[in-house]
Amino acid sequence: MSAFPDISTIQYEGPQSDNPLAFRWYNPDEIVEGKSMKEHLRFSIVYWHTFRGTGADPFGPGTAVRPWDDGSDSVENAQNRARVAFELFEKLQAPYYAFHDRDVAPEGDSLAESNKIFDAVADVLEEEQKRSGVKLLWGTANMFSNPRFMHGAATSCNADVFAFGAAQVKKAMEVTHRLGGENYVFWGGREGYQNLYNTDMKRELDHLGAFFHMAVDYAKEIGFTGQFLIEPKPKEPTKHQYDSDAAACMNFLRSYNLEDHFKLNLETNHATLAGHTMMHELDYAGMQGALGSIDANTGDMLLGWDTDQFGTDYYLTTQTMYYILKHGGLGSGGVNFDAKVRRESFEPIDLFYAHIGSMDAYAKGLKVAAAMRADNALDNFINARYSSWDEGIGAKIEAGEVKFADLEKYMLDKGDSTANVSGRQELIESVVNKYLDRV
Amino acid sequence: MSAFPDISTIQYEGPQSDNPLAFRWYNPDEIVEGKSMKEHLRFSIVYWHTFRGTGADPFGPGTAVRPWDDGSDSVENAQNRARVAFELFEKLQAPYYAFHDRDVAPEGDSLAESNKIFDAVADVLEEEQKRSGVKLLWGTANMFSNPRFMHGAATSCNADVFAFGAAQVKKAMEVTHRLGGENYVFWGGREGYQNLYNTDMKRELDHLGAFFHMAVDYAKEIGFTGQFLIEPKPKEPTKHQYDSDAAACMNFLRSYNLEDHFKLNLETNHATLAGHTMMHELDYAGMQGALGSIDANTGDMLLGWDTDQFGTDYYLTTQTMYYILKHGGLGSGGVNFDAKVRRESFEPIDLFYAHIGSMDAYAKGLKVAAAMRADNALDNFINARYSSWDEGIGAKIEAGEVKFADLEKYMLDKGDSTANVSGRQELIESVVNKYLDRV
Amino acid sequence: MSAFPDISTIQYEGPQSDNPLAFRWYNPDEIVEGKSMKEHLRFSIVYWHTFRGTGADPFGPGTAVRPWDDGSDSVENAQNRARVAFELFEKLQAPYYAFHDRDVAPEGDSLAESNKIFDAVADVLEEEQKRSGVKLLWGTANMFSNPRFMHGAATSCNADVFAFGAAQVKKAMEVTHRLGGENYVFWGGREGYQNLYNTDMKRELDHLGAFFHMAVDYAKEIGFTGQFLIEPKPKEPTKHQYDSDAAACMNFLRSYNLEDHFKLNLETNHATLAGHTMMHELDYAGMQGALGSIDANTGDMLLGWDTDQFGTDYYLTTQTMYYILKHGGLGSGGVNFDAKVRRESFEPIDLFYAHIGSMDAYAKGLKVAAAMRADNALDNFINARYSSWDEGIGAKIEAGEVKFADLEKYMLDKGDSTANVSGRQELIESVVNKYLDRV
Amino acid sequence: MSAFPDISTIQYEGPQSDNPLAFRWYNPDEIVEGKSMKEHLRFSIVYWHTFRGTGADPFGPGTAVRPWDDGSDSVENAQNRARVAFELFEKLQAPYYAFHDRDVAPEGDSLAESNKIFDAVADVLEEEQKRSGVKLLWGTANMFSNPRFMHGAATSCNADVFAFGAAQVKKAMEVTHRLGGENYVFWGGREGYQNLYNTDMKRELDHLGAFFHMAVDYAKEIGFTGQFLIEPKPKEPTKHQYDSDAAACMNFLRSYNLEDHFKLNLETNHATLAGHTMMHELDYAGMQGALGSIDANTGDMLLGWDTDQFGTDYYLTTQTMYYILKHGGLGSGGVNFDAKVRRESFEPIDLFYAHIGSMDAYAKGLKVAAAMRADNALDNFINARYSSWDEGIGAKIEAGEVKFADLEKYMLDKGDSTANVSGRQELIESVVNKYLDRV
Repeated sequence: MSAFPDISTIQYEGPQSDNPLAFRWYNPDEIVEGKSMKEHLRFSIVYWHTFRGTGADPFGPGTAVRPWDDGSDSVENAQNRARVAFELFEKLQAPYYAFHDRDVAPEGDSLAESNKIFDAVADVLEEEQKRSGVKLLWGTANMFSNPRFMHGAATSCNADVFAFGAAQVKKAMEVTHRLGGENYVFWGGREGYQNLYNTDMKRELDHLGAFFHMAVDYAKEIGFTGQFLIEPKPKEPTKHQYDSDAAACMNFLRSYNLEDHFKLNLETNHATLAGHTMMHELDYAGMQGALGSIDANTGDMLLGWDTDQFGTDYYLTTQTMYYILKHGGLGSGGVNFDAKVRRESFEPIDLFYAHIGSMDAYAKGLKVAAAMRADNALDNFINARYSSWDEGIGAKIEAGEVKFADLEKYMLDKGDSTANVSGRQELIESVVNKYLDRV
Repeated sequence: MSAFPDISTIQYEGPQSDNPLAFRWYNPDEIVEGKSMKEHLRFSIVYWHTFRGTGADPFGPGTAVRPWDDGSDSVENAQNRARVAFELFEKLQAPYYAFHDRDVAPEGDSLAESNKIFDAVADVLEEEQKRSGVKLLWGTANMFSNPRFMHGAATSCNADVFAFGAAQVKKAMEVTHRLGGENYVFWGGREGYQNLYNTDMKRELDHLGAFFHMAVDYAKEIGFTGQFLIEPKPKEPTKHQYDSDAAACMNFLRSYNLEDHFKLNLETNHATLAGHTMMHELDYAGMQGALGSIDANTGDMLLGWDTDQFGTDYYLTTQTMYYILKHGGLGSGGVNFDAKVRRESFEPIDLFYAHIGSMDAYAKGLKVAAAMRADNALDNFINARYSSWDEGIGAKIEAGEVKFADLEKYMLDKGDSTANVSGRQELIESVVNKYLDRV
Repeated sequence: MSAFPDISTIQYEGPQSDNPLAFRWYNPDEIVEGKSMKEHLRFSIVYWHTFRGTGADPFGPGTAVRPWDDGSDSVENAQNRARVAFELFEKLQAPYYAFHDRDVAPEGDSLAESNKIFDAVADVLEEEQKRSGVKLLWGTANMFSNPRFMHGAATSCNADVFAFGAAQVKKAMEVTHRLGGENYVFWGGREGYQNLYNTDMKRELDHLGAFFHMAVDYAKEIGFTGQFLIEPKPKEPTKHQYDSDAAACMNFLRSYNLEDHFKLNLETNHATLAGHTMMHELDYAGMQGALGSIDANTGDMLLGWDTDQFGTDYYLTTQTMYYILKHGGLGSGGVNFDAKVRRESFEPIDLFYAHIGSMDAYAKGLKVAAAMRADNALDNFINARYSSWDEGIGAKIEAGEVKFADLEKYMLDKGDSTANVSGRQELIESVVNKYLDRV
Repeated sequence: MSAFPDISTIQYEGPQSDNPLAFRWYNPDEIVEGKSMKEHLRFSIVYWHTFRGTGADPFGPGTAVRPWDDGSDSVENAQNRARVAFELFEKLQAPYYAFHDRDVAPEGDSLAESNKIFDAVADVLEEEQKRSGVKLLWGTANMFSNPRFMHGAATSCNADVFAFGAAQVKKAMEVTHRLGGENYVFWGGREGYQNLYNTDMKRELDHLGAFFHMAVDYAKEIGFTGQFLIEPKPKEPTKHQYDSDAAACMNFLRSYNLEDHFKLNLETNHATLAGHTMMHELDYAGMQGALGSIDANTGDMLLGWDTDQFGTDYYLTTQTMYYILKHGGLGSGGVNFDAKVRRESFEPIDLFYAHIGSMDAYAKGLKVAAAMRADNALDNFINARYSSWDEGIGAKIEAGEVKFADLEKYMLDKGDSTANVSGRQELIESVVNKYLDRV
C-alpha cells in the first residue's frame, strides 16, 4: 500500500500549478553556516495532528479522509497506521518524528493493558525506525484527554490522578528511551486552573515540582540521558496554564530547583497567545540557557485560540531561525511541526502540501537569517548602538566598579549630556526585506 | 535651506548598508497591468504625522528633531514648514499629500482668525502645488483635538459644538476645493462614546446623519465634486467609535440614505483593531461599491492600540494591492501613508527611511499581486471551487427559479450526495510564497 | 424516573451552603414595572448544551454523567431524553425552551429518514409541551456540524450543500410551526470563510440573501408568523463569520432588502468576541428597531473563544435588562440560556446550580435596572446633558432648518463659546453600585 | 483657599442624587477581621494622575480644570499644588500618598538644579505630612518621560543614561527616606524594547540587575529600610516591558539574586494587559512570598491599552481583598489609586467622585471577602477538594516518600480507579453573589 505520492516523480510546473510537490525549494543537503540545512532544521513530524487529527472542532465532528485507517481502536490498526506514518516521514525527508503515548497506541481497559498495547505498537515503531533511519525527536504522555485528568494530572486535586500520571509517564519514558528518543517533553495539558476560587495554586505547584523531580530521578535510574523539556502555553484548555510563558516556566523551574534538568520547548502559537512574539520567547529562553526545541506552527493573530496552523510566513521563519542560530542552534531539539491541516483540507494530499510548504518556508527563513548574519547586518548596528558600554563609565558599570554616588558625581560633572541616537526601526525592517528579496 | 538629501545622489551600497536611499526598489514608471506603478499606487504623504508629529506618547513628550521648525505657532513657521514638506514630497516622488486644517495651520484665538490663518497657509500650499506638481489627495478638519470636542463633534451632546464643527468643515471643504483636493475625508475622531450610560446613541447618530447631509449639500453649493470618504475605526480615542468597521459604516450610510454620496477610506491598523484583516475590509468595501482610498500603515498585532507603523510586510502589501486591483483600483483615492516614525526614530532622515521602505513594500506587493493575477493563480482555483453554481441547480438558485420545496425535492431525489473538495488553504499559502520568491 | 430534585423541598441553609436550590432568589410572580418577572424575563433553556453537551473540548472527550441517556442514536433514547428535558424545564420554572433539529433528533442515513426521526421526536415534544405548559421559544436547523457543511451551508461553494440546507430549514420551520415556536433563528454556523484567498465573498452573500428570501416566502406559504432572527458572531468556527456583529447583520439585511423580515438574536459572548459590550449591541439593535431576543451567557474576557459560560455578573445582567427595558422588552424573544456547564462540572446537579444561579442573576439585574429607571437615575442625567438640543440652535438643527453657512454665521456671532460639562463617568459607575447595594 | 468641599457637610440624598459625597459608605473605623478598615486598606492617593494629569491623550491636549494650578513650572506653583493635594488627601481620609520625583517637583535645567527644586518641594511635603498626619506610601523616580530615556533608563543602550538614572534614583531614595516613605517603587517605564532586532536583551537585563543591586546597597548606606517593589506590566509604552508579569518579575529577581530584596507592586490594569486576572497575580505573588502593594485601578477589558480607570466593580474589589487577606494583608504596602479621571471628567469635583466611589467599592470588597472567610465559604470547599492529599498516597507523595515505581505499583494494584468530583464553578460563582447580596 502506498498512501502518498513520491516527491521525486514530480516535475516542476510553475508557481501557478496546484502541484505542491513540484515546487519543493528546500534542499536538505545544502550547506548553510558550515552545516547542511537538514542538520540545522532537524525537521520532525508530529504523530497526533498528522495521524490522529480528524478535523473535529467544537462545532462539528471530523472530516479527514484517511484511507489507511479503519477507525477502530485495534492494535493492528495502530500498527498499520504507524507504517503509513513512516512512509510519510520518509517521503517528506523528515529525519524525526514525535508522539504522545495515546497517539501511537490506543488506551486499553486498564493501565496494564494500555502498557501492553503501547509496547506492541512500539515494536513496529522500532522496526520502522531501523528500516527507515527516521529517529524519535521526543516522546511524551497524554495526560489531558482522558476524563480522569479533568482537574489536571500532576496538579490534580485528586492524588490518585497524580499517581496515575506518574505511572503513565514512567512508561512513556521507558518507551522513549527504548526508541532512542533524544528528548522527553512535558506539555502542561490541564496543569492549570479553570477557576481560581476552587484552587490551591501553591499546593498544586508543589505537586508539579515533586512530579518533575521524580521524573529526573527515574531518568537517572534507567539511564535515559535525553533532554527534559517543558512547553509554555498561557491558556487553553484551562483558563490559566501554569507554564504560561518562557518566563513563568523558568521561574517555576528555579523555584523548585529544576533549572539544571529542564529546557523549554517553544511553540509559536503559544508565544503569541501569551502576548509575545516567537522571537522574544526564543531570545528569552536562549538568554536563560534554556532553548531546547521548537514546535513550529503559527496562529491566526486575529483569533484567540490555538489554531496550530502550518507556518508559511517568511518573517516568522526568518526570525525563528535567526534567534536559533544566534543561540547556537537547537542541540538535541528540532523544528517539530506541531501543526494541523484545516478542517476543510481533509484529503491526504493536504498533509503533503502543508508540510512541504512549511519546510520550504523554514528553509528560506534559515537562509535569510544566515545571509543577514554573514553580513552582520543587525550585529553591526547593535554593536554600535551599545558601544558606550564597551569603555568609560559603561565599562566600569559592567565591571561592578561604581555605585550610585559615583554615577551621580559623574553625571553632575558631565552636565546632563546624554545624547541618544535613533533606534532606526523603520530602516531595520526594510533591511530585513532586502534580505528576503535577495535569498 | 535643504532639509533632506537628494535620492539621485546616492550610490547603492548593498543591503547591509545603513543608507536607505541606496536601495530604493520602487520604479514609479514601471508598467504593471498596463499602467505605471505611480498611477496604481498614487502615494500620498500625510502632513500630521510627518510634519506635526513629535513623538509624544502618554508617557512622555516629543523627541523629534526638526531643524526647520521653530516650534512656534506663528504663521511664518507654518508657511515655512509647508515649503519643507513639499521638498520631502518631491524627493520621495510622492504625487499626493493630505492634511487636516489644524495640521497645516495653527488655530487662532477665534474661528474667524483661524480661518484667516488657514487661508494664509493655503496660499503657500497652492503656490507649492503649482511649483512642484504635487497634488492634494484629500483635506479634512481636525474635530477631535481641541477640548471643545471632548464629547464628540457632530455627535456632541452640546449643540454649539456641532455648530462649531459645521463651521470648521465648511472652511476645510472650501480650502480643499480651492487646492483641487480629489477627496474630502471624515475620520470620526471622537464621534462615539466613552460610556454608554451617559449617552443617547440614537440621537447622536441622527445628528451625524444630518451633519453629513449638510456637507453633501454644501459641496453641491460650491461645486466641489471630490469624493466624500468616511474612515472606519472601532475604538481610540473613544471606547466605541461609531464608524467601527466597514460594515458599521455602510449600515450607517444606508440608515441615513447617504450611501450614494460616501465611500470608505480604509486603514490597516483600524481594520485589525476591529478584528478584521485589511484584505477583508477591502473586499467588503469593494463588494459594496464603496472602496474609496486607503490609509497605508500597520499595527503591531500584539498591541491593542493604533500604533500607525509604516507597513513593510510583503504579505500585507500583496494582499492590499491584490484586492485593490480586484476591485478596479483606487479611483480618486490613493495609498496614503498615515504612519508615523517611532518615538525613538527621531531624526529627520528616519522620515526618509520610513517612507522609502514602505513605498518599496507596496510596490513589491503590487507586482506580486499582478503576477498572481496574470497567472490567474487564485482565480482559477476559485472558479473551479464555485463551478457548481454555474450550471444545474446552482444556476437555477442564482436565477431565482427555485424555492425551498424545489430544493427539498431535488435533494430527496439526489439522495443526500453533497461531495465537497478540499479548501487547500495550506497549498494556497505556499503558492503566494512562490510569487513572493519570484518577483 | 426523576432525574432532578424538586426545588420546593429544599430548605434555606445560608449562603455558605453548597445547596444551590436553597438560595433561589428569583420570584417569577413578583411584579416589576407592572409585569411579573417571568413575563419580563421569558427564560428559555437550550436543548443543545444542556441535553446534548458532553463536556468534550479540543483536548479531550466528554465527561458529563447523564444517567438518563444511553448514549445511543436511537429514536427511543431521543424521546426519553426529551421527557427528562421537560422535567428540568418544569423544575427550573422555565417557560420556554429552544432547539436545533439535530439536537432533539438524531440524523438518519438520508434526509428522508432524518425528517421521519425528527417527526417522531416532535411527537413527544408536542405531548410534553401540552402536559407541562412549557413553550417553544424558537427552533433552528444545525447546518454546521455535519461535514457536508464544512464550507458553509447557504454560503457553501457547493450548490448541493445550499440545496441540502434549504431542505433542512424547510423541515425545521415546519416542526417549529407545528410546535408553536414563537421565533425561528438562523445562527450562521459556518457561514463565513476560513481563508479569503479561496473565497468569493460577494457571491456567497448573494446566496445567503437568496436563502433568506426563500425562508421568508416559505413562512408565508405555511402561515408561520413567528419572528425570524439572525445571530451576530464575529468568528469561530470560521475565521470570519459574515454576521460578525449587529451592525454587519443590519447592513447585510439592508443590502438584501430583508430588514423588514428579520430581527437580531444577540449573545453576550458573541458581542464581546466582536469587541463590543452586550449593552452596546442591545442599544444598537434597539435603535435600529431590530432587538429580537438574547442568548444569555458570558465569556471569559481573558479568553479568545466562545466559552458560553452561565452569566452571573450583576453588572452584565443589570446592563442587559436595562437596555431591554429601555427598548420596550423582548417581544416574542426571551432570555435564552445558551450556556454550558464547565467540563469539570460534570454532574447532573451542576445543570441545576448553573441555571438557578444565572436566573437569579438576571432577576437581580432586572430589579436593579427597574429601580434605576424608577428614579430616572440615568435619564435625568442624559436629559440634562443633551438639553442644548431641545431649544435654540440645537432644535433648529434637529428640525433641518439650518445649513453649514447658518451654523458658521451662528458660531462667528457667538464667538467660539462652546462650554462643555463633565461626562461624570466615575460618578455614574458609583451610582449603579448604589442600586446594586439597595436591591 | 479651599479647593474641595468638606465631606462632613454633606447630607444623604438617596442613590439617585448626583452628590457623591452624600453616599460615602466606607467607614474607616469599622472593624473587620479584628482590624479597622483603614488599617486593612491603607488607601493612598497618587500625585501624578490626580495632581499632574491633564486629560491629554494621543488625540488631543489636556482638558482638566484645576483652578489652583497656574500651569507654570515655578517652584511656588509646585509648592502650592502640594498644599492643595494634602487638602484632598485629608478630605478623602486617605492615610497615604505616593509620588514620582518629577510629579511633585519640576525638572530644572540641570540635575543639580532639579535636585534643589525637589528639596524645596520636599520641604512643603514634610511640613504638610506633619500637619495632616498623612504619610508617604512610596516614592519613585520618573525615568521614562524625559526624552533622554527614550531607549530605557537602566536598560538604555546609552551608558550615560544609566548613570543619569542612577543619580536620579539616588536622590529620589534620599527624599523618600527623609519623608518616611514606607516603600520605594520601580516601575519599568521604558525598560523593555520597541524592536528586538536592534536590542541586546541579555546585556540590558544584566544592567538592570546591576542597577537594582546598587539601589539595595545605597539603601543600606543611608539606612533606608522601606520595602523595594517592582511593578509588572507587559507592554506600553514599549512593545515589550521586561517586567511583563509577576512570574517574569520573579524570574528576573531570582536570576539576579535579588529575590530577598524586592517584592511586587501589582496593578489591576497591568495584570489584565498581561492576560491575567488581578486575583491570579495576587495569589501568585503571595505564593512566592512577594506580595508587596497594589496599584488599585481597572482597565476596560475591551480596550488594549492602560486606561487606568477607577475600579468600582465589586467582583474585582472582592477578589482583590480576598487574596490580600489570604496572604496576610499588604504589610507596608497599600491600596494605591493609580487611576485617572476620564478626559471628559475634567472638573475638580470629579476627583472627589472618583476616589470616593472607588474607596467605597474596595471597602465593600473587603467586607464581602471577610464574610466569605468568616464562613469558610471557599475554604471548606477547597479543603474537601484536596482531601486526598491529606492521607494515604497523597500524604506520602507530599512527604517525598514515593517515586514513579511506587506510584505505578499503587495504580496497578488499585486498578485505574481515579474518581473525580465536580469542580462546581457555577455554584461557587453564585455563592459569591450571595455574599454580595448580603453585605
